[in-house]
Amino acid sequence: MKIIELKETITASNDRDAQVLRDELKRQGTLLVNLMASPGAGKTTLLERTIQDLKDRYSIAVMEADVDSDVDAKRIELMGARAVQAHTGGMCHMDAGMTRRALEELDAKDADLVILENVGNLICPAEFDTGAGKNVMILSVPEGDDKPLKYPLMFTTSDVLLISKIDVLPYFDFAIEKCVERAKKLNPSIEIFAVSSKTGEGMAAWENWLSNAIDAWKA
Amino acid sequence: MKIIELKETITASNDRDAQVLRDELKRQGTLLVNLMASPGAGKTTLLERTIQDLKDRYSIAVMEADVDSDVDAKRIELMGARAVQAHTGGMCHMDAGMTRRALEELDAKDADLVILENVGNLICPAEFDTGAGKNVMILSVPEGDDKPLKYPLMFTTSDVLLISKIDVLPYFDFAIEKCVERAKKLNPSIEIFAVSSKTGEGMAAWENWLSNAIDAWKA
Repeated sequence: MKIIELKETITASNDRDAQVLRDELKRQGTLLVNLMASPGAGKTTLLERTIQDLKDRYSIAVMEADVDSDVDAKRIELMGARAVQAHTGGMCHMDAGMTRRALEELDAKDADLVILENVGNLICPAEFDTGAGKNVMILSVPEGDDKPLKYPLMFTTSDVLLISKIDVLPYFDFAIEKCVERAKKLNPSIEIFAVSSKTGEGMAAWENWLSNAIDAWKA
Repeated sequence: MKIIELKETITASNDRDAQVLRDELKRQGTLLVNLMASPGAGKTTLLERTIQDLKDRYSIAVMEADVDSDVDAKRIELMGARAVQAHTGGMCHMDAGMTRRALEELDAKDADLVILENVGNLICPAEFDTGAGKNVMILSVPEGDDKPLKYPLMFTTSDVLLISKIDVLPYFDFAIEKCVERAKKLNPSIEIFAVSSKTGEGMAAWENWLSNAIDAWKA
């Protein structure tokens, strides 16, 4: 079997813009969380539940990034959080400049937490620093426990891995311990929570981590 | 709620290269099928089963495109089909030039069918014509029936939609008729098959379509 390397050069000036944005948000006391996952991993459902559980303690706003449609932003607004929908015009990721523009539209200077629901994709979003203080990824049980092998960059750039849809574990060949081992091998400091937005299992541990991260960002 | 348009310009010279490649493959009598889906939608498992069922009638070869790893190509070789693994070096799609290079390495001039398992992604692969004769996409039940709304280009550029993992329908809120309606609205001529690579349900109809497509390509 042959393996062919097809190389590309990735634009890099984005890193500087992202660091400037992160510094501004730090001074402002707003934690920006960049939430990344495949299409259909359950990003919006997880956000709905997280917002519901934390909205009395923190001022939360959401930026929904999508190639098209505004179904996600509408769902988030129903939960009582401010939301803005960013259309990427075909692009598969958000970069720091796009994130800055969306933040300006959101006008969330007073927010404790802004969540960027990135475009559904395990590849491109991992390559572009958005200026977020924390990167969080979701891997859902139906996607398979081999994904750290196939999308390593996503796992190395994430501070948190949420293994989601654990309510359907009985119906899939997904070994949590194998997935954890593979993710930790790529990124020993990654925090991992197994959750179900449907049943609520595991959500308290994730929300506790998030609360601590918001408080630490302001300190 | 505000909607922000973040535009980009997409390179277009790829279209001409793709058409040249498609014409060459037509003269050669090799049908190139571009298989696209999200990470974990079950592309490789579907291929394994399809190859097993059709390998006595057709000469089949496979190009596995991945950001990294060679787990998929190894799985395909175990099924007795020629396989080549293409690493995209971080890129989220295959274009016509990359496909040509991978075909040269595969050396599949005598093949009736070459399947390109594109990078796991519902966005970028839809934007780049690979030179394939047919575009086939998989949407798995756990991803949700709203995906035509969010990734419309993938549905408009596909000749076939395979709704996969139908064995887990009882455990997810996925309405097949709603998904079919949304896909047909975007692309009235799209062929749709509901399949399970696990139980084999629906596979015969998909393989019948594929056999007809191979025969028609040679005619």
